[in-house]
Amino acid sequence: MHDVKTDTICALATPPGVAGLAVVRVSGPRAFELCDLNFHGSASASSAADHSITFGWWGVGDERIDSVTLMVYRSPRSYTGEDVVEIGCHGGVFISDKIIDCLLNSGARLADPGEFTRRAFLNRKLDLVQVEAVADIIHAASERGAQTAARQLAGGFTKRLESFRTGLLEVLGLLELELDFSEEDVEFVPRHQLREQLHAILHEVLLTAGSAHGASVLRSGFHVAVVGYPNAGKSSLFNALLLRNRAIVSDRPGTTRDYLAESLLIDGYAVHLIDTAGIRDTDDTIELEGIAITESVVKQADMVLVLNDVTEGLHHSDALKEDLEIRLSSTPVLLVQNKIDCIDTGSLSNGDLWCSARTGEGIEALRQRIVTSIRAQTSGVQDVLVNDRQAKLLRVIADNISSVLHGLESKASNDELAVDLRLSIRILGEITGETWNPDVLDTVFSRFCIGK
Amino acid sequence: MHDVKTDTICALATPPGVAGLAVVRVSGPRAFELCDLNFHGSASASSAADHSITFGWWGVGDERIDSVTLMVYRSPRSYTGEDVVEIGCHGGVFISDKIIDCLLNSGARLADPGEFTRRAFLNRKLDLVQVEAVADIIHAASERGAQTAARQLAGGFTKRLESFRTGLLEVLGLLELELDFSEEDVEFVPRHQLREQLHAILHEVLLTAGSAHGASVLRSGFHVAVVGYPNAGKSSLFNALLLRNRAIVSDRPGTTRDYLAESLLIDGYAVHLIDTAGIRDTDDTIELEGIAITESVVKQADMVLVLNDVTEGLHHSDALKEDLEIRLSSTPVLLVQNKIDCIDTGSLSNGDLWCSARTGEGIEALRQRIVTSIRAQTSGVQDVLVNDRQAKLLRVIADNISSVLHGLESKASNDELAVDLRLSIRILGEITGETWNPDVLDTVFSRFCIGK
Repeated sequence: MHDVKTDTICALATPPGVAGLAVVRVSGPRAFELCDLNFHGSASASSAADHSITFGWWGVGDERIDSVTLMVYRSPRSYTGEDVVEIGCHGGVFISDKIIDCLLNSGARLADPGEFTRRAFLNRKLDLVQVEAVADIIHAASERGAQTAARQLAGGFTKRLESFRTGLLEVLGLLELELDFSEEDVEFVPRHQLREQLHAILHEVLLTAGSAHGASVLRSGFHVAVVGYPNAGKSSLFNALLLRNRAIVSDRPGTTRDYLAESLLIDGYAVHLIDTAGIRDTDDTIELEGIAITESVVKQADMVLVLNDVTEGLHHSDALKEDLEIRLSSTPVLLVQNKIDCIDTGSLSNGDLWCSARTGEGIEALRQRIVTSIRAQTSGVQDVLVNDRQAKLLRVIADNISSVLHGLESKASNDELAVDLRLSIRILGEITGETWNPDVLDTVFSRFCIGK
Repeated sequence: MHDVKTDTICALATPPGVAGLAVVRVSGPRAFELCDLNFHGSASASSAADHSITFGWWGVGDERIDSVTLMVYRSPRSYTGEDVVEIGCHGGVFISDKIIDCLLNSGARLADPGEFTRRAFLNRKLDLVQVEAVADIIHAASERGAQTAARQLAGGFTKRLESFRTGLLEVLGLLELELDFSEEDVEFVPRHQLREQLHAILHEVLLTAGSAHGASVLRSGFHVAVVGYPNAGKSSLFNALLLRNRAIVSDRPGTTRDYLAESLLIDGYAVHLIDTAGIRDTDDTIELEGIAITESVVKQADMVLVLNDVTEGLHHSDALKEDLEIRLSSTPVLLVQNKIDCIDTGSLSNGDLWCSARTGEGIEALRQRIVTSIRAQTSGVQDVLVNDRQAKLLRVIADNISSVLHGLESKASNDELAVDLRLSIRILGEITGETWNPDVLDTVFSRFCIGK
């Protein structure tokens, strides 16, 4: 591990590539001093006002590297909490590289991935759930995911965890107070009141943990598997939904390759359409129900569309749909009647979804139906994108609270109850990073890129 | 054309992609007002001090988009000369998009490629050769190219053009002064002195125009064509120079595909190695000399290496080399004796370059020889990367000065001479963009990316 206290780090903070602007970030006790060696402007980094911008040029001796802007943030009013300088230079590959070279030659070290944010965490500028929000914002697959992560960064999750802690501390305080008077066998608070309070917390904790699936949808996108018999028009539907042509469309059955995925944004949600041709291998429609429909693809789906070719009959794919519903108990499976331009629409039943992938009719309704499903699956997500690490810890807390509740029923001693409650409070601290170990930090920061 | 005076533009200034930081740039009379609508911090864009950074969040209503830093530059102390705000937000795709959406909804317009720099030019923050330097810095293929462009941006070229103008204006002034006294037939300055002065300027103008080739090498890289008979070891040499394996190496002749190019940096110069197998199609070595060796490849080369397999004899490729020298009169053609690990090195003559691509012996000397050639071809480049537009105009000026010199010889009237001199001065203004037409600007800015 590097010594956080004496080390000055630097890295490119913007993506590499050709653009107008690139920003090199420097943080640490020598940030100002190292910039002073190479920056020439009306003020030096050391002398510039906090949160000020100075225009000038970056050079080695008389060699001008680039005209730059120097943005100075004095500790502790910076992202990392340390002295920070951001050097805005021209985009492209060489200028920022050269500036970083200068800094490295002067004694800075290239930052590890996420190291700026790690320092922000260690200096208590961000707690761990905010740190995780930063990674979520940067890697978000959709607008909605980025926005929820932004709310989490703003402290939404932290506040909720704080309310859990306050509630648990209150119960713990009462139990401990009774302990002080234990010889007198006083009961300051009726047990049913403690139970109610704990039940309320448990409910919220489980709700929060349960929103992890929705959070994953917002973070990574909503997976829609499109299944159907050969020539049902899966690829055409695919294209109609994408509103552009990517999949291969043909009248000949079996022209879709085994697995095809495309991503699109619907209403700000990332949707991954997965087209599988797994049921083309036999002509025996009765047997088809039983075969494995590219199991992994369908199992990772958040929604399955069974596309039926109405020219083969309205109930041609019913068995397939029923089979999928049984196997995927918690995933919505929707029947979509396709090619309705070929039949008399009077024969359609009310609840059915229908469309013509060819003419585009019904496609907008289908898109809206997908959005409805996304909304349902993400409704538990408020201002927090719960991830697996957090959900796991929240479930441990829930188990703990359940055990306290059980203890209350079975008249366990206040001592025993207090031990469980203290454990819950400690685990809450693990979620926010109040208590942490290096392994957890390494895992959290492994998602980061260099420069953040 | 958009009205520069009333329009507020915005764009992502950093490359798109996953990274810690993205910067959205806004410029124009409503820059502050539009940011005030969505930014929430301790100061608004309108109220913030010039060249200050304010931390806060960007939102739509209560919807928090991201925590951002607002960098405020007040007209005329900004890149464009207008009011400018730079919004630093988290990297990734969605946040900056959303912020730009907000700005567009509030009445900003998405900037055209290079439009910020175009405004900087129109507001006389940069002249046209500085504008061209900005594009050169961003697109530079090498460190040296980027550095020279940075010097040009710092005003090197502008100063040199200014000195040409001063010199020409001086001569023009003297000629015009004599015109005022023309009836008296006075000659204020001896003609030989005017000639000397014009010759000195002509010399400098031609030198500057002549550095365009070297500038192109610094800007885009140095092209080295490697030619030789089959099995001479071209691909191995290629690999030895690259210090990594990319080309296909084999003992079987003809395994290199027709055309193969790789780029590397040597001493900060971008070098493009071009390996051509154009002379493998016949076994008649006598006839080989005459065949076309992938003409276009060799012709675009700045240097040709003829690789000779010493195991076939030291003079096996002499005819090939001589043929190339005749056809490429101005391009250095170097013979390199390869596979010297297979023979007694005593038989090599002094001037020959030699190496063993297999063992790596001699490769460093060859690299250095390439650098020497680059230095020779770029020696005319000082602090200016002359481009084709500029070189063309400089040559027109040179022709003009020559014609004035000719006029002085043939005792042309001061009137006639003054007309030519004024033309030269006007064309100097075209180079710096003092006088310009929209077509020239469009061409210059077509090289820019959006956000600069």
